[in-house]
Amino acid sequence: MSIRVGIVGISGFGGGEALRLIANHPSFELVYAAGESSAGSRLVDRFPGVPARLAGLVIEKWDPAAMPALDVLFASLPTGASAAALARVPEGVKIVDIGGDHRYAEGWAYGLADVWPDRIKGQTRVANPGCFPAATLNALAPLLADRLIEPGHIVIDAKTGISGAGRGGDSKFGYAESNENLQPYGLLEHVHMPEMATTIERLSGGSAAGLVFTPHLVPMTRGLLATIYCRGRATTGQCLDAARRFYADRAFVRVTDTPPQTKWASGSNLSFVSYAADPERNLVIAMGVVDNLGKGAAGQAVQNANLICGLPETAGLEGAPVWP
Amino acid sequence: MSIRVGIVGISGFGGGEALRLIANHPSFELVYAAGESSAGSRLVDRFPGVPARLAGLVIEKWDPAAMPALDVLFASLPTGASAAALARVPEGVKIVDIGGDHRYAEGWAYGLADVWPDRIKGQTRVANPGCFPAATLNALAPLLADRLIEPGHIVIDAKTGISGAGRGGDSKFGYAESNENLQPYGLLEHVHMPEMATTIERLSGGSAAGLVFTPHLVPMTRGLLATIYCRGRATTGQCLDAARRFYADRAFVRVTDTPPQTKWASGSNLSFVSYAADPERNLVIAMGVVDNLGKGAAGQAVQNANLICGLPETAGLEGAPVWP
Amino acid sequence: MSIRVGIVGISGFGGGEALRLIANHPSFELVYAAGESSAGSRLVDRFPGVPARLAGLVIEKWDPAAMPALDVLFASLPTGASAAALARVPEGVKIVDIGGDHRYAEGWAYGLADVWPDRIKGQTRVANPGCFPAATLNALAPLLADRLIEPGHIVIDAKTGISGAGRGGDSKFGYAESNENLQPYGLLEHVHMPEMATTIERLSGGSAAGLVFTPHLVPMTRGLLATIYCRGRATTGQCLDAARRFYADRAFVRVTDTPPQTKWASGSNLSFVSYAADPERNLVIAMGVVDNLGKGAAGQAVQNANLICGLPETAGLEGAPVWP
Amino acid sequence: MSIRVGIVGISGFGGGEALRLIANHPSFELVYAAGESSAGSRLVDRFPGVPARLAGLVIEKWDPAAMPALDVLFASLPTGASAAALARVPEGVKIVDIGGDHRYAEGWAYGLADVWPDRIKGQTRVANPGCFPAATLNALAPLLADRLIEPGHIVIDAKTGISGAGRGGDSKFGYAESNENLQPYGLLEHVHMPEMATTIERLSGGSAAGLVFTPHLVPMTRGLLATIYCRGRATTGQCLDAARRFYADRAFVRVTDTPPQTKWASGSNLSFVSYAADPERNLVIAMGVVDNLGKGAAGQAVQNANLICGLPETAGLEGAPVWP
Repeated sequence: MSIRVGIVGISGFGGGEALRLIANHPSFELVYAAGESSAGSRLVDRFPGVPARLAGLVIEKWDPAAMPALDVLFASLPTGASAAALARVPEGVKIVDIGGDHRYAEGWAYGLADVWPDRIKGQTRVANPGCFPAATLNALAPLLADRLIEPGHIVIDAKTGISGAGRGGDSKFGYAESNENLQPYGLLEHVHMPEMATTIERLSGGSAAGLVFTPHLVPMTRGLLATIYCRGRATTGQCLDAARRFYADRAFVRVTDTPPQTKWASGSNLSFVSYAADPERNLVIAMGVVDNLGKGAAGQAVQNANLICGLPETAGLEGAPVWP
Repeated sequence: MSIRVGIVGISGFGGGEALRLIANHPSFELVYAAGESSAGSRLVDRFPGVPARLAGLVIEKWDPAAMPALDVLFASLPTGASAAALARVPEGVKIVDIGGDHRYAEGWAYGLADVWPDRIKGQTRVANPGCFPAATLNALAPLLADRLIEPGHIVIDAKTGISGAGRGGDSKFGYAESNENLQPYGLLEHVHMPEMATTIERLSGGSAAGLVFTPHLVPMTRGLLATIYCRGRATTGQCLDAARRFYADRAFVRVTDTPPQTKWASGSNLSFVSYAADPERNLVIAMGVVDNLGKGAAGQAVQNANLICGLPETAGLEGAPVWP
Repeated sequence: MSIRVGIVGISGFGGGEALRLIANHPSFELVYAAGESSAGSRLVDRFPGVPARLAGLVIEKWDPAAMPALDVLFASLPTGASAAALARVPEGVKIVDIGGDHRYAEGWAYGLADVWPDRIKGQTRVANPGCFPAATLNALAPLLADRLIEPGHIVIDAKTGISGAGRGGDSKFGYAESNENLQPYGLLEHVHMPEMATTIERLSGGSAAGLVFTPHLVPMTRGLLATIYCRGRATTGQCLDAARRFYADRAFVRVTDTPPQTKWASGSNLSFVSYAADPERNLVIAMGVVDNLGKGAAGQAVQNANLICGLPETAGLEGAPVWP
Repeated sequence: MSIRVGIVGISGFGGGEALRLIANHPSFELVYAAGESSAGSRLVDRFPGVPARLAGLVIEKWDPAAMPALDVLFASLPTGASAAALARVPEGVKIVDIGGDHRYAEGWAYGLADVWPDRIKGQTRVANPGCFPAATLNALAPLLADRLIEPGHIVIDAKTGISGAGRGGDSKFGYAESNENLQPYGLLEHVHMPEMATTIERLSGGSAAGLVFTPHLVPMTRGLLATIYCRGRATTGQCLDAARRFYADRAFVRVTDTPPQTKWASGSNLSFVSYAADPERNLVIAMGVVDNLGKGAAGQAVQNANLICGLPETAGLEGAPVWP
C-alpha cells in the first residue's frame, strides 16, 4: 500500500531533490507539490526528466488548509518561512521539515538519523539537520561518545557546493562570479552553530561545546566537506575503530582510512567519515563528507520519513553515488 | 531469479557507470569485474560508495577463459581492444559491447534501443551505439522515417562532456587545461561517422547519407548535445509531431517544445529531442541530448541487456535525472 | 599626455573588463565611472584588486549632463538602454558603444577593428560589434573577400561562456543550474543576426546573406567559439592562405592550422581563426575564437578607442592570454 | 637596456605563467626557454597566444652548459629536480628558483618578497616560497610581528586550485574526476610545512612554531585560500590595523575588512589578507588569498627578480586581476 506524500518548496534545490528521491521510492506516492515561484506549472515543465506518471501533476501555491489527504509532508522552505504555516498542518499528517525553523524546537525530534534513529521512530514531527551539521555531527559523534575529543575546543572548517546557498537569483551565486572562486563567509556567526552546539553537548553527556565554525562556498554544485580540528589524545586507529563500532549496523555511514572526497557521495544519501590524529600534539582531525542535497537535505529527510513511517530505513535510498 | 552479469573494463568511466546501474538493478547480480589498471583492488577501493554487498568483490585481470559462469557480459574497452578477446567468450554468454569494435559487425545487432528494440530482442551479441550516434540518431530517426529531411545533407555539430574522452591521463584532459576551455577536434574525420552514416541510410530506406560531423569537448563531466542542421520543408510542428508519434510508446525518449539542455538527462538513461524548422529556408534543426555515460554508454547498454534477457526494458533504469 | 576616459555601465561584466583594460592602458586615465547597481560605491568596493590610484573613485549614477570633461566615453549598457542617453553626450566626447543600440545606426561607424580599421580612424562614434559577430566575422571576412564561400548559405553554430548572458541575477545563470549544463537558445531569432547579415553583405560586395545562427551557453565564464559551416570549393590550404594574407599586418588575429580553443584567447584581445575544407563536398568549415569579454566586448572597444584617438592600435592590449 | 632572461621548466604551469609575465615585462627579454616535454617545439606551438616577437623561439632541452648568456634564470622544476643542475649555472647568472629545492638552503635567500624585500635585494640566488606558504605567511606576518598570536598553536586549513598539483597526467587530476570534487590530502605530512615553520619562527623572534596544515584540492584552475586558526587575544580591528601598518608601503598586499575570495587575485600578483577575531575565546582567524600561479609562483618570482635586478618591484606586475 502506498504512502501519500506531499512536498512544499518544490521550486528550490532541496525540494527538487526530494522530488527525485520520492519519485524513485518504492512506497511513497507523490500526490501534492507546492511552490512559490513555480505554482501553476506542471512538474514536467520544471523537471523535464520527471517520470511520466508524475509529469502532469500541477504545482500549487501552498495552502495548509487546501492540501489533499496526506500521510507525510516534506517541507523545504527558507528559514523563517515555515513555522507559522506548518503549525496549521493537520496533526495526522507526519512532517519532515528540511528547513531550519524547527531544529530543537518543542515537539520536534531532531532528525540526525544515522546517530539517533531510535529517537526518530514513532515521531510525527521531525526537524532535519542542516547540511553543515549533517556532515560535522556524523564525523564527531563516535569521538564524542567515546570521549576521544574535548567538546569545548572544536574548530570546523567547512566547504559546501553552491547549491547550498539556495536557488535565489543573486548574481554573486551566478556562474560567472562563482566559477574559479572560493569564498569564506559568515565568520563567527553562522546560523548552523546552535544546532551543532546543542547536539555536541548531548553527544558528550552534557559538557559545554566550544565551537569555531567557518563555512566556505566552493565552485561546485553539490558536495560538502567538514574538516574538523579537535583536541584529544587518541590515535588515528582509535578514532577509526570508534567510528566503525559506532556505525557498525548503520547503512549509510562509511568509515574510510583515507580522507574522503565529496564526489564519493554525490547524488546519494551516504556519509563518509575519516580521521587523522597525532596524540603527541593533542590533535584529532575528523573529516565528514556528504552530498549537501542528499544526506545534507532531501536524502536524510527521506531517511527520516522512512523511520517515522515504519519502513526499512534504506527504502528509496539505495542508489550508488554518481561517478564521475 | 537473478541474472549473473560481469563487467570488463571497469576501470574506465563507461565501466564505472555500468557498475552503478547494475548495482541498482532488480534482476542483475554482479559476479565478475575485470579491469586493466584496477586489477587486484576490491570494488570498494575504486568506488567508495559501492553498495556493501559488492564492496569486497575483487577486480580481476580479464581472461575470457577464466571467467565464472555468466549470463551477460558488459564490455567497455577502448576501440580496437575488444574484438579478439570477445571472440573467445563462450557462446552461451550474452554480450553487450559498449566499445566500438562491433558496430555493424557480422553477427552483432546494432543496439539503437529506442529506435529498433525489436531487432535487439532475442539477440545474444549487441553492439552499443557510440555516444554521439546515440544522441544524433534518436533525434533524426523520426525525421528520416517520415522523409522530412534529406539524408544527403546533414551537418552535425556535437558537444560532449570530457568524460567522453575516456579516462586516460593526458594532461590536455586535466582540470587545469580543460576548465574554461571549449575544444573542437577531429574535423572531417571522426570515428563515429560510419555507424551514423550506415544507420541513417537504413532509417531512410537506403538513400545515401551525406554527413558533416564536428565534435567539441565542453568543460563539463557528463552530457552531450547534438545540434543538427538538415535540409527539409517541414515545419517545427510537423517535426515535433513526427517524433511524438515515433516515440509514442517508448519509455526513454522525451520530445520537448523547447531546446533541450544537457543537465536534463544527467545521470539517467533519458534522451531528449526537439526541433526548430523554417520551411521557407529549407531548414530543419534537430537537437538531441543524452548523458554520454547514460544513454550514450552504460544506460543504453543496460537497456539492451534488458531487451536480450526478456526483462522489462526499463528495469534498473527508472531513476530520474540528478538536478541540479 | 593622458586621455581622459569614462565608463558607464561599470556594474556589468563588459564594464568591469573595460575598467581592467583601461587601468592597464598607457595613455588612458579613468576619471569617471557610472553604474546603476553600484552607484555610491568606490571602485575598490566592487573591484578589490583595482590599482591603488583608482581605488577611491566613486561610482556615480549616470547623468550625461553631469559628467566631468572627457575625451572618450565607453558605454556598456543593456541593449535598448543607451540610445536616448548617449544622444545627450556632448559632441566633443568620443564614444565607443559596447552595447547593441548603435550597430549600423546612422552616424556610427561599425567597429570591426581587425577588418576595417581605416573606416574607424577619424570617427567619433563607434558601435562595437557583438560578441558572436566578433568571432564569426573575423573568421569569415577573408573567405568572403576572396569569394571562397557563398554568402547565401552560412550556418553558424556558436558557443559562449556564461558571462555573455550578462550579470543579471536569473537563477538559470546561477552556478548550480549552469554548471554541467549546455544550453542552446534563441533558435532562428537571435538579436545578433542583423549586424552579421549586414556585414557579410558588405564583405561580399553586396550579395545577399543567408544565415542560420544557433547560440549555446557553455559552462565556462569566458570564451566564445563559432563553428561555421559554409558552401565553397576551396581547400583548407586556400582558406588558411586567404586568412594569412588578409590579416598579414594585423596585430590581433592569429591564423592557426589546428582548430582553435577558447582558452587560447582568455583574458586577451586576440582572435583565432582556422579552417577545414573539403572541396569535393562543397564544404568549408570556418572557426573563430575570441574571449567574449575581450575581443567580444571591452578588448575590441579599447582597440576602437585607440583607433579613434590616433594611438597605436595595440596600446594597453598587449597582454598575453591567461593560461591555464 | 633590456635584461636577458631564461626559463627552465616552461612545459609546466609555473613556467607558462612566468612566460606570460616576462612577455609583458618592460625590462626583461626572454632569450632562452627550456622544457622536458616540449623541447623542440616553438613557443607558439605550446602557447598559441604568445606575442609575435617570441613566437619562433625554440624550446630546448635544458643543459646548464649550453645556455646563451643570461642575466636571470627562472627555474620552475619539480621538487628534487633542480638542485644538482642549478649548481652548474654560472655564478654570474642570477637565479630565482620557483621549485622547492632551495628554500632555506645555504646561499639562497628566501624570497618572501612582500615581507622581507630588503633581504632579497642584492642577492643572486633566491628561493621562491611555495604557494601555500605565500598565502599563509603574508597573512600571519603582521600578527607574528606584533605578537598578536601564539606561534606554537596555528592550524592552517588551505585550499588550492588544481593547477597547484602540477601538470602531470594523473587521471585523478583529470576534469571528469576533479570537477564537482573537493579533496583533502597530505594530512599531517605536507611538504610545505618546514618552510612555514622556519619562517614563522623567524617572524616571531625565535619562538617555536607549532603547525597543523591540511591542504585541499578545489575544483578550480587557479586560486588559493588559507584559513588560519590561531590563539590570541587581539580584536579584529587590532589585527587589521597591524596588517595595514605592516604593509603600509607595500604594493601587492591588500588588507580587506571582509573575507577575501580567490577570484579577487586571479591572474595577478596580489595578496589579500583579512582577519576575524574573538578575544574572549582566545581566537584569531587569519585569511590569505593568492593566485597560486601568481603570488604563489611566477608572480612572486618576477617580483623577486625585480628586486635582485634593482628594478622597480612592480615592473611587469601591475596588471589588475581578471574578473569575472
